[in-house]
Amino acid sequence: MKKVTAQDLAKKQKEISVAEFFERNKHILGFGNATRALITSIKEGVDNSLDACEEADILPEIYVEIKNGEDSECRIIIEDNGPGIVKSQIKHIFGRLLYGSRFHAIRQSRGQQGIGISAVVLYGQLTTGKHAIVYSKSEEDRPAIKVELAINTNKNRAEVIKYDTEHWEKPSGTRFEASISADFIRGKRFVYDYIQSTSIVNPHAKIIYKEPDRTVHEFERTSEILPKKAIEIKPHPYGVELGTLIKMAKHTNSRKLNSFLKTEFSSMGDRTTKAACHEANLDPNLNPKNMSRNEFLELHKAFKKIKIMAPSTECLSPIGETLIKRSLKHETQEISPEFIITASRPASVYSGNPFQIEVGLVYGGKLAKDKPATILRFANRVPLLYQQGGCAITKAISSIDWRRYGLDQPSGKGLPIGPAIFLAHISSTQIPFTSESKEAVSDVNEIENEIKLAFRECARKVQTHISKKVKRKKTREKFDLITKILPEIAKKSANLLNKPVPSLEGVITKIMDVVWIEDIIDYEKTERQAVQTTLTGEDPEGEKTSGTITKSKILVVNYKQKPQNFNLYAVIPEDAVVGSVSPKPAKITNNYIKWNLGKIDPVNKIDVLFELAGLEKGDFDENDLYVENINPAFVIGADKWEGN
Amino acid sequence: MKKVTAQDLAKKQKEISVAEFFERNKHILGFGNATRALITSIKEGVDNSLDACEEADILPEIYVEIKNGEDSECRIIIEDNGPGIVKSQIKHIFGRLLYGSRFHAIRQSRGQQGIGISAVVLYGQLTTGKHAIVYSKSEEDRPAIKVELAINTNKNRAEVIKYDTEHWEKPSGTRFEASISADFIRGKRFVYDYIQSTSIVNPHAKIIYKEPDRTVHEFERTSEILPKKAIEIKPHPYGVELGTLIKMAKHTNSRKLNSFLKTEFSSMGDRTTKAACHEANLDPNLNPKNMSRNEFLELHKAFKKIKIMAPSTECLSPIGETLIKRSLKHETQEISPEFIITASRPASVYSGNPFQIEVGLVYGGKLAKDKPATILRFANRVPLLYQQGGCAITKAISSIDWRRYGLDQPSGKGLPIGPAIFLAHISSTQIPFTSESKEAVSDVNEIENEIKLAFRECARKVQTHISKKVKRKKTREKFDLITKILPEIAKKSANLLNKPVPSLEGVITKIMDVVWIEDIIDYEKTERQAVQTTLTGEDPEGEKTSGTITKSKILVVNYKQKPQNFNLYAVIPEDAVVGSVSPKPAKITNNYIKWNLGKIDPVNKIDVLFELAGLEKGDFDENDLYVENINPAFVIGADKWEGN
Repeated sequence: MKKVTAQDLAKKQKEISVAEFFERNKHILGFGNATRALITSIKEGVDNSLDACEEADILPEIYVEIKNGEDSECRIIIEDNGPGIVKSQIKHIFGRLLYGSRFHAIRQSRGQQGIGISAVVLYGQLTTGKHAIVYSKSEEDRPAIKVELAINTNKNRAEVIKYDTEHWEKPSGTRFEASISADFIRGKRFVYDYIQSTSIVNPHAKIIYKEPDRTVHEFERTSEILPKKAIEIKPHPYGVELGTLIKMAKHTNSRKLNSFLKTEFSSMGDRTTKAACHEANLDPNLNPKNMSRNEFLELHKAFKKIKIMAPSTECLSPIGETLIKRSLKHETQEISPEFIITASRPASVYSGNPFQIEVGLVYGGKLAKDKPATILRFANRVPLLYQQGGCAITKAISSIDWRRYGLDQPSGKGLPIGPAIFLAHISSTQIPFTSESKEAVSDVNEIENEIKLAFRECARKVQTHISKKVKRKKTREKFDLITKILPEIAKKSANLLNKPVPSLEGVITKIMDVVWIEDIIDYEKTERQAVQTTLTGEDPEGEKTSGTITKSKILVVNYKQKPQNFNLYAVIPEDAVVGSVSPKPAKITNNYIKWNLGKIDPVNKIDVLFELAGLEKGDFDENDLYVENINPAFVIGADKWEGN
Repeated sequence: MKKVTAQDLAKKQKEISVAEFFERNKHILGFGNATRALITSIKEGVDNSLDACEEADILPEIYVEIKNGEDSECRIIIEDNGPGIVKSQIKHIFGRLLYGSRFHAIRQSRGQQGIGISAVVLYGQLTTGKHAIVYSKSEEDRPAIKVELAINTNKNRAEVIKYDTEHWEKPSGTRFEASISADFIRGKRFVYDYIQSTSIVNPHAKIIYKEPDRTVHEFERTSEILPKKAIEIKPHPYGVELGTLIKMAKHTNSRKLNSFLKTEFSSMGDRTTKAACHEANLDPNLNPKNMSRNEFLELHKAFKKIKIMAPSTECLSPIGETLIKRSLKHETQEISPEFIITASRPASVYSGNPFQIEVGLVYGGKLAKDKPATILRFANRVPLLYQQGGCAITKAISSIDWRRYGLDQPSGKGLPIGPAIFLAHISSTQIPFTSESKEAVSDVNEIENEIKLAFRECARKVQTHISKKVKRKKTREKFDLITKILPEIAKKSANLLNKPVPSLEGVITKIMDVVWIEDIIDYEKTERQAVQTTLTGEDPEGEKTSGTITKSKILVVNYKQKPQNFNLYAVIPEDAVVGSVSPKPAKITNNYIKWNLGKIDPVNKIDVLFELAGLEKGDFDENDLYVENINPAFVIGADKWEGN
């Protein structure tokens, strides 16, 4: 055989088109098998629809349909009421990989790669040979545009087969249709789960889902408010790579280093800019275009040494603890768990990208005791269904020793076994997915640590919850003894001796020697004040139009021997609206209500009441109470206020 | 706030360059953190070097060096003695993502994506701002070319900073240098492990590895033979996607359907082509360029209905059971495991890509009993170090119930806990990695099933091994009784009675009533016949130049009452060379030696001997023996021959 030389090898070297690459590696995009391909296709379509609606401030109404074709071929349809897409862009958005509007913007969105929906088109034509069809209407008084297209994989460009126009009732929207090789029988449950989970963490979206047998599932919106809009921000100096810094300096319009830093980065004010230049020993008047690699290196090092404010979190749109709790309640309706606990971390940064972690933990009830715990993972409000084993969320949970929380975990590591559900949501301007299929989060240290911290906080809350319960139970026994049996004995003894019943106040307070706080929560349905009709003009009906008022009643009894005068704090969810409060509170913030309770004499009590609107029944089901200006050791039912 | 319209959104739509995409998503390429980045960089360089050497039929000698720079910056150097790269290609291979020679070729190779090494260049310039340097020498009588380059990420093209020439001693080779942000302290152990594992499954490669503190590790080659070369093949009709079929028909030079099928696909002969056309109801003389989508659809369906020979496996280069056993022996030197068992499956196909699974299982010894079992994963002779949880190999192992093999596994699923090591190697023309970082295999059903089947075979062998051991132990006790104690009693009784010692033959055979087979294996060192000097001209020294002869001695004793005449089979490793054999065998194949043992009279014995060359000490440490023409129930130490 002839010896192979460098020249021979050179002849084989060839460029690979990105479309060709992904066609060959379709599993990387989440099309590895016929079940997964179905879910990925639906997911990419719905993600795009939700993003588009939110960007245009439209309450999303999304229609998903799967039509079962022959030979395990499905036709999928995803339609929205978003702003539509202008004609010239349709062929690029659906017919080119690596093309999109969200890649270059630093803010939270579902799509970020510019690959998703075109990958569905690619997969469809690869497996069925059929073209995709896109309808788009962007102006109310014009007809919709209909485009039939395919992807030329050698060029990574769309081939438009046909342009057309068509009448469409909606004021605006996009409809996407593609035929794909898919396994609906196996995928059925996953598609439903995906849509349900999506609906739970996107309560502002209405999703209608029609299965091949014409069964229709309607997931109504439970909130008429769009989530807080994620605002685009500039890159943060922490974690910006040296190479990126150099590239930014090349392209800036600023002629001076200090204005470059202030204009192109977030969190860089006068003071910080000055500190950075000083630390790097650089003249703030330097032209960034003329700086040497070494000067950039010094600047880059300086970023890490000086204190820079965390990036603004307005680029993020977390789910919120209330919604997380609601989603967990929903998941565990028939399980009656012992408790549901949530925690959220302040926003943090990895490689210059802000991110925030929210978690939840469900324990007990009818959950299986001998099965591995369930993990629910979400990223930017999108449920993650596959690759659990390869996800940083799983890794973080597995690294905590859960054995002291009643879970089985051989060697104190690994996925715990027992009656628990773990939920984690990561919001970020850029989720570091392990692959383009966006199914698992990469093990970036900063993110893994934050997830661990969040779950540790959860674990601490679990312990507080348990110890509070134990303490309260013990005191309750004492309390029952004192308030029921003692007076009974006193009464009987008095009767026997034919004397008046003695006052037991002194005895009770002497034995109890605590301030007793307990609470009851009630829900009251009310007609919603202003019924907002949905965008389709239909009048939403029934249960969904009525709101819920959460009524919290807190009973404070002074069983100490001296009068008490202290402050009480009740923690409230950020997204709740406070209604009537009595007695008059000293302060109401986003997070708590504070009362100065005034003097309470021994064996006297005070009723504290407050109402919350904007929550659903059960969202708020346990008060988190704190006290100030009193020794917390003498208080049952509240902890020491540590400030907020 | 102004309402966002489709026009506003259109303005933000933008093309994303593939280099820009990966720069932003560096974790997808395996550069998620500073430890992993170090290993990925080394791995990409070594993979390329091994591929290049093997393609040019050169025994690889690879030099790896890590120099520790300041501020967790490392300079990595990877040098080989491969064929070099021609000048015009250097800038493309190292300076463009999605460019390479192995993407379009259907045969097993380490690199397949055309991303790896340019990703290292990209990561290096992103994190350190420094350029990569490539030296290449492709002609012995010319100097080496030196190229300093960077990647323009907006264009995904190399920017060559400088071309130069330099004197280089080697006849040919490539040297790659890049500075990357990396954490050597944390990565140290992983780099060593990676190089060691690589050396074990690539015994034909010599690897020299120099750490920052100048410690040098030499991994000598233990085989002077290049692995079987993987031959490029054509796509196989099974699993070829409809879209690919249509595309192939568009580009073919064949003018007739039957010649198109025969020329462009593997395993399509006259008969199969005819059957396919007949099944699809298509005229074999059709011009493939004029066929309709429906006709292709029929053809595509026909492929799945007719019987087509499996694709040729000459495109694959599996490791072989001997090497797998050796690698496991090496890993477990100090553990003295109870047994090491291997299994390999015949080649199979997924989506038209041939693949083959080989597995191994180590059990017992000093392995931890309360820790999860260890999994060693390899793909195309490359060790996989990360993303174990997200890998099809892990999933397949976890889906088998291992509890009856003495491993702990809550609920009979999940990673088993106990003293075991699982090894799996997948070779394929295209490994379906979950991402471009090539760390985990995607859960393609066909592959997962084959891995399961392979491990089930292992498990069966474990059971046979255990039951054989138990059976032999029981018979051994009987044997000891008969052959030692009975004659002793006979002797003593005879002495006592003053009579001659009686013949015990009849008694012994009556009690034993079996054919007893046992074996001993010895190793003998020999001077290698022809000492081949390494390519650097150094004379390899000491132990490495001597070979080992494996000597197997099988003792067959007839303890039955009648003479026996049967066939004996000894299974031998495919890669062993058979030396002297006695008695004269009836047949020698790649897999076994067969003897017709002739008549053996009662209490008579036969010594069967054979020698194997080409193995290392311990590679072959237990005979696998079978018998034919005798009731296997009467044989201890061999099973029934079922054919091969």
